[in-house]
Amino acid sequence: MRKQAKISNAVIRRLPRYRRYLNELRKKGVDKISSNELSQLTGYTASQIRQDLNNFGGFGQQGYGYSVDGLYNEISAILGLDREYKMVVVGAGHLGQAIVNHTYYYKTGFVVNGIFEVDPKLIGTKINGIDVMNYEDLVEYVEKKNIDIGIICTTKDVAQEVADKLCFAGVNGLWNFAPVDIETPAHVAVENVHISESLHSLAYHMSRTGERKQQRSRKK
Amino acid sequence: MRKQAKISNAVIRRLPRYRRYLNELRKKGVDKISSNELSQLTGYTASQIRQDLNNFGGFGQQGYGYSVDGLYNEISAILGLDREYKMVVVGAGHLGQAIVNHTYYYKTGFVVNGIFEVDPKLIGTKINGIDVMNYEDLVEYVEKKNIDIGIICTTKDVAQEVADKLCFAGVNGLWNFAPVDIETPAHVAVENVHISESLHSLAYHMSRTGERKQQRSRKK
Repeated sequence: MRKQAKISNAVIRRLPRYRRYLNELRKKGVDKISSNELSQLTGYTASQIRQDLNNFGGFGQQGYGYSVDGLYNEISAILGLDREYKMVVVGAGHLGQAIVNHTYYYKTGFVVNGIFEVDPKLIGTKINGIDVMNYEDLVEYVEKKNIDIGIICTTKDVAQEVADKLCFAGVNGLWNFAPVDIETPAHVAVENVHISESLHSLAYHMSRTGERKQQRSRKK
Repeated sequence: MRKQAKISNAVIRRLPRYRRYLNELRKKGVDKISSNELSQLTGYTASQIRQDLNNFGGFGQQGYGYSVDGLYNEISAILGLDREYKMVVVGAGHLGQAIVNHTYYYKTGFVVNGIFEVDPKLIGTKINGIDVMNYEDLVEYVEKKNIDIGIICTTKDVAQEVADKLCFAGVNGLWNFAPVDIETPAHVAVENVHISESLHSLAYHMSRTGERKQQRSRKK
């Protein structure tokens, strides 16, 4: 097993982006890449990239750069993407449907096995070929199928209850899209996705761009 | 106009989270809060919080803490959330529908005015009361209605083309959900949302949790 010191969340959040660009390079048949070239692609500084990858022991050779395939495989292993994950989605509304359709196209190892709902109109239907089942049967299903990840696409008010049920049933991770921070026992990892935070960040950058435009026009 | 130095993206990304918690405190009628209390709520360290807020001149008083209302309003103004944004969605598939339904519930000042599609089966329908229009009419609509933000919910292969069209028509910001990094002219802000990166980050934390569990059981 790989020995790792505790790595900061900020670094972990950059790894998928490195991996995505490395994957594009692999597809183009590129063999090696320097941290400067990775910098131009990803928008992070070269020193940031070298520092990030040093957390994992480097992989680079001075004067040669990084092996694209090697780095891609190492980052995949670090991120735990060298195995398959079984997932269930709770909530078959628009968001749940979007997630099911989205993950379907990853083709990477994250497989939605079942969808759970309380709405009787949806129970018994299929989304992308995947059964929509009764929420009452969630715990039994997760236990029996050894589900790894629960994806929460419910409203804010029931999200924690759904999370508790999924943890009780034995998932190891929760991917939460309800607009609330879910809490889990220490052995269950959780990612709370707050889509609105990215919209607010956009608004900030837009207002800054607007200020720059005004300042420029005043200087004229 | 507020005078600001350039603030790092990492800080900007934490502000919406501060704001979200402050909003919850406001609703509960809480008047003031210390950086230690904010730390417990948000999970960031108190010194991180003080440092972040110092970027904007502080707002805190020693021994008193922060005014919840004051800090909420200041962060809202910094993020540019003290005004209304007109938005269009391009792509009325599951993701587009989820976004329309999601933003509908923000009730904050981000309003979807129209949705654009190429699929003739969808053109002419309504989602959440909002018209789905022909993609061919996008530029004219954006110009006429002074749309601020374009939300891209298309496939990867057409996303940049859609972005170019939106920029040409005069939007100031793009919120991109297609799994590719969109490029824009300097005066147009862009947020590329990569939902899969958050899933990969979850997988990492799950594999770390798994390692800790194995290490623990081996020690026994």
